[in-house]
Amino acid sequence: MGILNFKQDRPLDLIGLGRLCIDLNANEIHRPMEETLTFTKYVGGSPANITVAAARLGLSAGFIGKVSDDAFGRYIVQYLLQAGIDTGCVAVDREGAVTGLAFTEIKSPTDCSILMYRDNVADLKLSPADLDEGYMSKAKALLISGTALAKSPSREAVFMALEYASKHDVVTFFDIDYRPYTWTSALEAGIYAKLAAEKCDCIIGGREEFDLLELAMGHPLKQDDDWTAGHWLKHKAQLIVVKRGGDGSKAYDRSGNIFRGSTFPAEVVKTFGAGDAFAGAFIYGIMQGWEIEKAQTFGAASASIVVSSHSCSDAMPTADQIQEKIDRWTSNQLIG
Amino acid sequence: MGILNFKQDRPLDLIGLGRLCIDLNANEIHRPMEETLTFTKYVGGSPANITVAAARLGLSAGFIGKVSDDAFGRYIVQYLLQAGIDTGCVAVDREGAVTGLAFTEIKSPTDCSILMYRDNVADLKLSPADLDEGYMSKAKALLISGTALAKSPSREAVFMALEYASKHDVVTFFDIDYRPYTWTSALEAGIYAKLAAEKCDCIIGGREEFDLLELAMGHPLKQDDDWTAGHWLKHKAQLIVVKRGGDGSKAYDRSGNIFRGSTFPAEVVKTFGAGDAFAGAFIYGIMQGWEIEKAQTFGAASASIVVSSHSCSDAMPTADQIQEKIDRWTSNQLIG
Amino acid sequence: MGILNFKQDRPLDLIGLGRLCIDLNANEIHRPMEETLTFTKYVGGSPANITVAAARLGLSAGFIGKVSDDAFGRYIVQYLLQAGIDTGCVAVDREGAVTGLAFTEIKSPTDCSILMYRDNVADLKLSPADLDEGYMSKAKALLISGTALAKSPSREAVFMALEYASKHDVVTFFDIDYRPYTWTSALEAGIYAKLAAEKCDCIIGGREEFDLLELAMGHPLKQDDDWTAGHWLKHKAQLIVVKRGGDGSKAYDRSGNIFRGSTFPAEVVKTFGAGDAFAGAFIYGIMQGWEIEKAQTFGAASASIVVSSHSCSDAMPTADQIQEKIDRWTSNQLIG
Amino acid sequence: MGILNFKQDRPLDLIGLGRLCIDLNANEIHRPMEETLTFTKYVGGSPANITVAAARLGLSAGFIGKVSDDAFGRYIVQYLLQAGIDTGCVAVDREGAVTGLAFTEIKSPTDCSILMYRDNVADLKLSPADLDEGYMSKAKALLISGTALAKSPSREAVFMALEYASKHDVVTFFDIDYRPYTWTSALEAGIYAKLAAEKCDCIIGGREEFDLLELAMGHPLKQDDDWTAGHWLKHKAQLIVVKRGGDGSKAYDRSGNIFRGSTFPAEVVKTFGAGDAFAGAFIYGIMQGWEIEKAQTFGAASASIVVSSHSCSDAMPTADQIQEKIDRWTSNQLIG
Repeated sequence: MGILNFKQDRPLDLIGLGRLCIDLNANEIHRPMEETLTFTKYVGGSPANITVAAARLGLSAGFIGKVSDDAFGRYIVQYLLQAGIDTGCVAVDREGAVTGLAFTEIKSPTDCSILMYRDNVADLKLSPADLDEGYMSKAKALLISGTALAKSPSREAVFMALEYASKHDVVTFFDIDYRPYTWTSALEAGIYAKLAAEKCDCIIGGREEFDLLELAMGHPLKQDDDWTAGHWLKHKAQLIVVKRGGDGSKAYDRSGNIFRGSTFPAEVVKTFGAGDAFAGAFIYGIMQGWEIEKAQTFGAASASIVVSSHSCSDAMPTADQIQEKIDRWTSNQLIG
Repeated sequence: MGILNFKQDRPLDLIGLGRLCIDLNANEIHRPMEETLTFTKYVGGSPANITVAAARLGLSAGFIGKVSDDAFGRYIVQYLLQAGIDTGCVAVDREGAVTGLAFTEIKSPTDCSILMYRDNVADLKLSPADLDEGYMSKAKALLISGTALAKSPSREAVFMALEYASKHDVVTFFDIDYRPYTWTSALEAGIYAKLAAEKCDCIIGGREEFDLLELAMGHPLKQDDDWTAGHWLKHKAQLIVVKRGGDGSKAYDRSGNIFRGSTFPAEVVKTFGAGDAFAGAFIYGIMQGWEIEKAQTFGAASASIVVSSHSCSDAMPTADQIQEKIDRWTSNQLIG
Repeated sequence: MGILNFKQDRPLDLIGLGRLCIDLNANEIHRPMEETLTFTKYVGGSPANITVAAARLGLSAGFIGKVSDDAFGRYIVQYLLQAGIDTGCVAVDREGAVTGLAFTEIKSPTDCSILMYRDNVADLKLSPADLDEGYMSKAKALLISGTALAKSPSREAVFMALEYASKHDVVTFFDIDYRPYTWTSALEAGIYAKLAAEKCDCIIGGREEFDLLELAMGHPLKQDDDWTAGHWLKHKAQLIVVKRGGDGSKAYDRSGNIFRGSTFPAEVVKTFGAGDAFAGAFIYGIMQGWEIEKAQTFGAASASIVVSSHSCSDAMPTADQIQEKIDRWTSNQLIG
Repeated sequence: MGILNFKQDRPLDLIGLGRLCIDLNANEIHRPMEETLTFTKYVGGSPANITVAAARLGLSAGFIGKVSDDAFGRYIVQYLLQAGIDTGCVAVDREGAVTGLAFTEIKSPTDCSILMYRDNVADLKLSPADLDEGYMSKAKALLISGTALAKSPSREAVFMALEYASKHDVVTFFDIDYRPYTWTSALEAGIYAKLAAEKCDCIIGGREEFDLLELAMGHPLKQDDDWTAGHWLKHKAQLIVVKRGGDGSKAYDRSGNIFRGSTFPAEVVKTFGAGDAFAGAFIYGIMQGWEIEKAQTFGAASASIVVSSHSCSDAMPTADQIQEKIDRWTSNQLIG
C-alpha cells in the first residue's frame, strides 16, 4: 500500500473540482499582445488541466464545477467528455455568468503573461447545493484547486466537498494554485487556503504558495521547505510536495523522508501548464502505488512535454509519451 | 448649405463617443462556436467602427472614450492612431476595468450571434470628468452611441457631452445602437435613449430601435416610420434616418421630404457591421454637403462591402472603393 | 385662471412622488447626539412632508412611492391614510429593502445635523412598472422630489412619470431637494436634476440647488437669481421659485415679474421642514388660484409654524392656523 | 485549576470581538411597532453585551471591533469606556459604513421581534489588518461572536484572531450567535461557524445553533445534545454549553460529565439579552475558577435580571445583584 490510502473498490479514480475556463493562446508568439492577430481556443483552468492530464494517463476521472449557459460553457463540457471525463456533476449557471478567459501572451519562453477575465465567472458560482454526496462517495480521490476558494459560493462548496470527502474516506489533493487577480489580498487568500490545507491529505504548491499559507499564521515568513513540510505533516496531510520550478520538486512524508525530483530538458515555448502537467502525472503515479520518486520523475517528464507545446490541456501526454521521454533522456545520459 | 449646419472653421470633423471594444471573430465560419478553433482580433464597438469608417473616408476624426490599462486597451489606442484618429481624449481606466469583448459566431450569412463580455468594462467608466470642453469645441460634429447610456458614469458623460455640444454648436448624431445585454430592461434603455434623442440633431436607428424610444412614451407602439419622424422632428432633430435592413433606409427632414435609400447586392459573410458602415459613410456624405439620397447610396454601398468581409472596423472602405462599388452596380444595371 | 393651467375636472389635486422615510428626532435637544437618549418617530421625506402639508390644508392628495415590507413601511402607509392621502399607488417592496431613516440632532436652533440611513432603501426601488398611467391622469398636479432621481430604478420612474404627466396635462412641480449623501457627486445630481427640470412647469429650490443645475451646464456658476429664472423660463417652466432661507423667497414668471416673499418671526427649535412647509402651502395657494405673493406669504407663515415645533410632517398646520399666524403678525406690525 | 487553562499573568481578562451596534428599544411596549412612538437608544450586539456584562462583574475587558465615523460610532466607544472596557482596538471605519441598528418591538413578553438595519455596517468591515497581535497576547481569553463571520473582511478577521489566540495560548470562547438576516443561507452560516468552532476552547449556543453546525456536516440533523457535545469535544473544545431557553443549560466536559443549569423565575419584559447575560456571567464564573454548575447558576440568575428590564447592555447586573437574586430565590425555595 502506498503512502495515501485509496479505497480501491471505488469506480472513479479522481474527481477534479474548481475552475473551468477558456485559454485563448496567441498564435503569433514572441511578441507583445498588441501585435498578435489570432488566438486559439483551449479548455483551461488548473484543475481542468490536471484532470485532463489524469484522464489521458488512463485514470477514470470526473469533474465538479459550473459552466456558463453559452457556447463556451457547452464547448467545455464537450471537451471534457471527449477527454473521457465524467461531467454528470458539472452544473450549468442560469444567472448570466460567463466563462472565465485567459488570454496568453508569449513574449519569450521566460516572459509570458496572462490577461484574465474573471468578473462574474461561472466557475465561482459553484455552490454547496450543486454538490452530490453520492457522487463523491464513489471516488478514490478528490483534487481541490485553491482558486475555487476565491469567492462565495464556490468557497463554501470547497469546504462542503472537503466535509463529504472526509466522511467517505476520499483522499484529498490540494493544489494551492494561487492566482492573485481573483483575491482581495494575499492575506485573504492565505487565510482560506490555510483552512482548506488543514483538511487535505496531500498539499502541492510552489514555494511562494506555501509562503501564502504562512502569511495567515501571523509570523514572519520562514521560506524553508523543511519547516513547511514539518508544519503541515502535523495536520491531516501525509504528503507535502513543494514545486521549485527549474530546481525540480521536493516531496516529504511523515517518516521524515525527503524525495527530490529533478527536471527534464525541453525546448520551452511557454512555461504555462508545467505545474498542472506535473501534478496530473504525479497524482497518477501516486495512485498507481509507485514510489514517490518515480511519480516525481513521471511528473517532471510530463511537464517538459507540455512546456514545449502551444497549449496546456490539449498537450497533456499519454503514459507512453511520458515513458518515451524518460527513456530517451536516460539513454542520452548513459551515452553522454 | 446642407440640412445640418456644420461650423466649417473647426479643425476636427467628427468626434465619436462611447464603446471601444475588441471583436474576436471566429475564423472557421458557418459552424457553431463550440466547433470553432481560432479567432482573429479586431477593434470593435459601434462608435469605434463608425469613426474608423469616417476617418478612412478622409474625415478628420477624434474619439472620446475609456480603455483598460492592459494590452487590449493599448492595442485599441494604437489601432485608432494608425487609422488616423486623434486619441488625445481616450482616457485610461486605472481601477481594474477590462476591455469589452464580442466573440462572433457566424453559423450562416443570416444566422450570426455574439457572445459578449460586458462586466466591468472600461468604456462604461467614462465619466463627465473625463470630458474636455475645449476639445469638443474644436469639432464640427459629435457622434453619440446609445450603448454609452447603459450605465453610470458613462451615462452622465453622454448628457454632459450633449450639453457641451449644444453650447458650442457642435452638430450631434445619435446612433441608438441598442444592445439588450448591457441594460436592465428595454424600458430603461428607452427612457435614456429618448432623453438623449431629444437633444440631438440627427437620429439614426433601426425600426426596433425607434420603437424602443416609443416604449418610453407610454403609449402602444405605432411602428410607423412617418409618425416616428414626425414626432422627432418636433424636437431638436433636423434629420431622422430609419434603417430597414434589406429594405434600405428612409431619411426625413423638416420640410416633409422622405428620401429612400436602396441596398447593394453582396456576397454576405455576416451581417455585423452593416449598420456602422452605413452610418459612417452616410455621415461622411452629409458632412460633404451632399444631397441626402447620395449620402444614403454611399452608406448602402459601404455596408455591402463590409458584410462581404470578415471584420467590421478593419473592412471599412475608402471613398474610392465605395465609388467603384456604386459605379459597377450602376453599369451592371444599365447593361442588365 | 392662474399662472399654471390646472385641469379643474380632475378628482385628485396633487400627487406627491418620491421619498417616504422615517424621521427619528432626538427628544433631548440642544446637545450632541452622543448624549441624546430617546427619539420620537415621524413620517418624513420631503415629498411626504409636502403632500401631508397639502392634505392638511384641504387638497385632495395621493402619493406614488415604495415602502418596505415591515413595521416601518406599514406605519408610513397608515400615517398617510390618517392624513387623508390616497395610498393606492404606494407599492410595497418584496426584495428586502428597508425604510430610509433620518436621525436628527438638534444642537442649537441653527446647528442641526442629520444622520441618514440610505443603503438599500425602499423609496429608491420605485420603478417605472410601479406607475399607473390611469392614476396619474386623474390628477391636476404632480410633485416630483429631486431625491427620487438619485438611483435606478427610481430615477427612471421619475422620467416615466414626467412623460405621463406631459401626456395628460398634469401640472408638474419640481422640488430640487438636493441631499448629497444619496449621490455619487454633485455633478451627477446636477445632470439628472437638470434633465428633470427641463420637463417641469414649476421649479422650486434654494440658491445652492439652482447652482447644482448650473453645474451641469458646463459654465462657471452665475449665482444670480435673475439669470436662473430667465434660463429656466425658456424651457417648459412657467414659474420659478428661489427659496433664500431667512431672506424669504423670490418667484419669477414669464411676463418678467419678480414676486418677493418675506419671512415670519418664529421661536426656532430646528430649521428642518421649513422648506417643505413653505412648498406645501405655496402649492396650495397657487392651486387655489391666488396671487403669487399671497401664496408666498402663506408658505412663509407655514414654515414659521413648523420650525417652532419638534417634527416636520406632524407639525404641518391647517389653513386656519396659518391664517391666524399671518393675522397676528400683521396686527403686531400695525401696532408696532 | 479549572477546566480551561487561563494564563494568569495576563493584564486583560477577556477581549470581545465582533458586532457593536445600537439597539433602539420601543418605550411603548406590548403593541406592534406601527403604534410605538418613541425609542430609547442602547449599545447592543451580542459580543458587546457579553463584554459589558463581564466588565460589570469586574473582569478587566477590552474589545476588538469597528465603528462608524459618526455620532453613533462615537456614542458606542464612549459607552464602552464608561463601562470600563478598553477600546484601544476599536477601529473607526472611514469608508462611509453605518452603525447597525436593531429596533425592538415588544408585543408581549413572549412575542418580540427585531427590525434590523445591517446594510453596509461598520462592524462587518473589521479586517485582519485591524488586528493587533500584541494586544491579543495580553489577554487570558477571547470571545468570538458568530455574527462576525457573516461577511468579508470581518470573516477573515475572525480566522486571523483565532490564529493569534492559538499562537499565544489565549482561551477562546465561541458564541455561535446565529442571526439569519446577515447570512445568504443557513448552510453558509453553518459552514463558517463549523470552521471557527473547530478552533475554539469553549462553544456556547442554543440547540438550533448547534444544529446549524451539523448542517455543514452533510448528514441529517441528530438534534441530540449528547451527540453534539461528543462530536465537538473531539476537536479543540474542552467545554460545550447548550443553552435550552426555559429549560436551562447543559454543559459537557471531556471527562464525560454533564452539568445541568436551571433557570430563575422572572417578570419577563422581553426575552432579548437573556443569552448574552447568561454567557457573560458564565464566562465570569469559569474565569474565577468556579465549578461549572456554579457558573451556570450565576449565568441563569443574570439572565433572569436582564429579561425583567427594558435594555440589554445597560441592564447587565453586578456580582452583588446576581448574588442577591440567587440568595433570595434559594431562601424562597427553602421557605416554600
